[in-house]
Amino acid sequence: MTDLLIQNARVLQVVDEQTTILNAHDILIKGNRIDAIQATGAANPSHFKQVIAANDMLAMPGLINTHAHVPMVLWRGLAEDVNINTWFNDYMWPLEHNLRVEDVYWGMLLGLAEMIEAGVTSVADHYFHMDEAAKAVEKAGTRALLGWAIFGSDGIAQIEQTAGFIQRWQNAAGGRIRTMLAPHAPYTCDDDFLRACVDKAQQLGVGIHIHVAETKEQTQASLEKRGITPVQVLQETGVLDVPTILAHVKGATPDDIALLAQYETGIAHAPKTYLKLASGFAPLLEFREAGIPIGLATDGAVSNSTLDIFESMRLMAMTQKIRTGIAEHFAIPQTLHIATRESARVYGQPDELGHLAPGRLADVILVDMSGVHHQPLHSVTASLVYNTQTPDVKTVIVDGQIIMRDRELLTLDKAEIIHEVTQRMARLAYRDPQHRIQTYNP
Amino acid sequence: MTDLLIQNARVLQVVDEQTTILNAHDILIKGNRIDAIQATGAANPSHFKQVIAANDMLAMPGLINTHAHVPMVLWRGLAEDVNINTWFNDYMWPLEHNLRVEDVYWGMLLGLAEMIEAGVTSVADHYFHMDEAAKAVEKAGTRALLGWAIFGSDGIAQIEQTAGFIQRWQNAAGGRIRTMLAPHAPYTCDDDFLRACVDKAQQLGVGIHIHVAETKEQTQASLEKRGITPVQVLQETGVLDVPTILAHVKGATPDDIALLAQYETGIAHAPKTYLKLASGFAPLLEFREAGIPIGLATDGAVSNSTLDIFESMRLMAMTQKIRTGIAEHFAIPQTLHIATRESARVYGQPDELGHLAPGRLADVILVDMSGVHHQPLHSVTASLVYNTQTPDVKTVIVDGQIIMRDRELLTLDKAEIIHEVTQRMARLAYRDPQHRIQTYNP
Repeated sequence: MTDLLIQNARVLQVVDEQTTILNAHDILIKGNRIDAIQATGAANPSHFKQVIAANDMLAMPGLINTHAHVPMVLWRGLAEDVNINTWFNDYMWPLEHNLRVEDVYWGMLLGLAEMIEAGVTSVADHYFHMDEAAKAVEKAGTRALLGWAIFGSDGIAQIEQTAGFIQRWQNAAGGRIRTMLAPHAPYTCDDDFLRACVDKAQQLGVGIHIHVAETKEQTQASLEKRGITPVQVLQETGVLDVPTILAHVKGATPDDIALLAQYETGIAHAPKTYLKLASGFAPLLEFREAGIPIGLATDGAVSNSTLDIFESMRLMAMTQKIRTGIAEHFAIPQTLHIATRESARVYGQPDELGHLAPGRLADVILVDMSGVHHQPLHSVTASLVYNTQTPDVKTVIVDGQIIMRDRELLTLDKAEIIHEVTQRMARLAYRDPQHRIQTYNP
Repeated sequence: MTDLLIQNARVLQVVDEQTTILNAHDILIKGNRIDAIQATGAANPSHFKQVIAANDMLAMPGLINTHAHVPMVLWRGLAEDVNINTWFNDYMWPLEHNLRVEDVYWGMLLGLAEMIEAGVTSVADHYFHMDEAAKAVEKAGTRALLGWAIFGSDGIAQIEQTAGFIQRWQNAAGGRIRTMLAPHAPYTCDDDFLRACVDKAQQLGVGIHIHVAETKEQTQASLEKRGITPVQVLQETGVLDVPTILAHVKGATPDDIALLAQYETGIAHAPKTYLKLASGFAPLLEFREAGIPIGLATDGAVSNSTLDIFESMRLMAMTQKIRTGIAEHFAIPQTLHIATRESARVYGQPDELGHLAPGRLADVILVDMSGVHHQPLHSVTASLVYNTQTPDVKTVIVDGQIIMRDRELLTLDKAEIIHEVTQRMARLAYRDPQHRIQTYNP
């Protein structure tokens, strides 16, 4: 008996930035890995413990969110139509003054429920009280790469706290949970703090997930204050000597891009947040020309509203087309390459995730393209990128386990989560700009 | 007995660009109009022929699509990642060489099904063989403002054909169908042709729906060829002397905007198309400052992929924020004003549509905001603009009639429509750039 048969799917393959659809194919799953992908007909359903009839749905790798602050869903909708300074100083950091340890657990569960429904199976999350986040991931059955966000102003002891978290959770939940150090940003962590993070990361054998050069203004401020860019700060402090996820990097200079191309790093890209905050375009074309991988991301829901990687995917392609003025750029095959294999590389599992093939981890989502908004289906890949809405994702498999089937969440109780979050709303929404966890002044 | 009671909704009100939510309110509908909006509790359900339990769903006016080519859904996905010249000359106009009269009926039905599911109850459509489109609208139960697209090169007799269509369909289907003249654009219709259109429009008492200054390049080309802008061509030929819907107008100069402010006109805005074609931003802030109304639009699905006005709404706000660099612009109340009352003004029914109030036409949609992607619901309006997906639209009422209930279409047979469209796919997808209906050379 093999464990799971996904029968009669259209299977998306992205190879060398070209896409193919294998029509009428089965995916055979043994344990937590893909065993085979083959034409429908050969596999006998009675030889499998579980069978999913895909009925021509599209099978693709589970989506990867390479930079988020998932528990921020707790404050969704509370900081709209404001610029980045106001967003931090008058909204987000005062709101986070209300955060309690157990809030993180319920906020994480809510965001994980939203992501599972959207076909997002892995998330690189950067937040506080991460033992709670890890417990939520363990329960949800998804994957996560968790970093405990720390600020230099909170003192060097924070790094030991993070180290304890990493030792407790690295490779936990059967390998579904991995960890990183997560110093907030060069403008909130001084050089000694960053160097201490690097030392600890090297000692523990993990990477670093950090915000850097989020806007051109941050780069300009760094140049004025200390004569080097935020990216150069990362180089000088040794941060780039460990594997890194760099969030946003919209303020990268041409020299920064050439510099980053020499390191094992990836850019996490959250276009909805950039649009909503009017905080500028990212130089994605230049990153890609330099060979630096791009991962799709949502950032937190207080800026991004949603944790929807399908939306990030199409917004990335569309904003880069309009930025460059060239509609041929970020074409559908490249866009799907970024969403799958390149995001897996940024996430640090390029050989395990982001592609459906024998031996890979069995993270698979099934997308129903029978709705009128996809019809007639002249192009599966065009419709996947530009027409898919998250309710089209019907079934989600992570590590060989079905965690959503026909839109029903099998690991999480939505009513309980919404109840727990709802009763926290009033307390969490209190806002006094005099009491904030940090001040934005890059 | 009154006809229809919508019980216990949250009712969106947009007044003077400010939003209010009337929680726990009922909407009472008599015939095709709203009779009353009042706190839940007073109305006795047994006095109504039909009752819809809204259960806290958001009630808002049916969305209005102010510029589309609905039957183009027939070719969805066939012209991706190309610029506007290639899009017209190598794809759209060769593809339309395959169009047969009865294709318009089925394409229109498919697009109407997609729009009903997305809460779009009215569409200003600009296409060919419009008797077929009108029959489809009559069947679907929606509203439409239909214009038969004509090119100068096809000869002046086209105008008489359109006149016949207008005489057959103006105010048909109980007033749900209205009509306009629809000359394609100044670059495809010479001045005499445009003047003849104006004469006919005045004679029939209808307006004109036309593409103008779609890009800055079109404005530049017009200036080089004849020394005036496309908008000035409309003024000189008298087009602006009748009520107009002007599609796109991204190439409007400051003088054009001042000129347009003197006329009864509105701008139809389709941001997803502009992003996908990398064809530039529209000067919406300047239009609004001049008092010119903006209507949301989708254009055709071959450029826009979807006919989703919720998507147009958030893309409009986000692209205008990034264009101006000011996150405070196109704030949620203004965005909802554009989506409702301003779009109704562009559509030509500012006192009948786009607002829920006694005496108005009963076009109401119910949006379910209980999903995890809306939770916790700190801000109904923020979530409406930035988190709503079309499957959240559960029930659609047009002209007092329920045409979708709990996601079930009551007027259309989706399986039949998809079957009819699918069997046309191969014939319609044939493409020979030597055989095109027009040449794009503005």
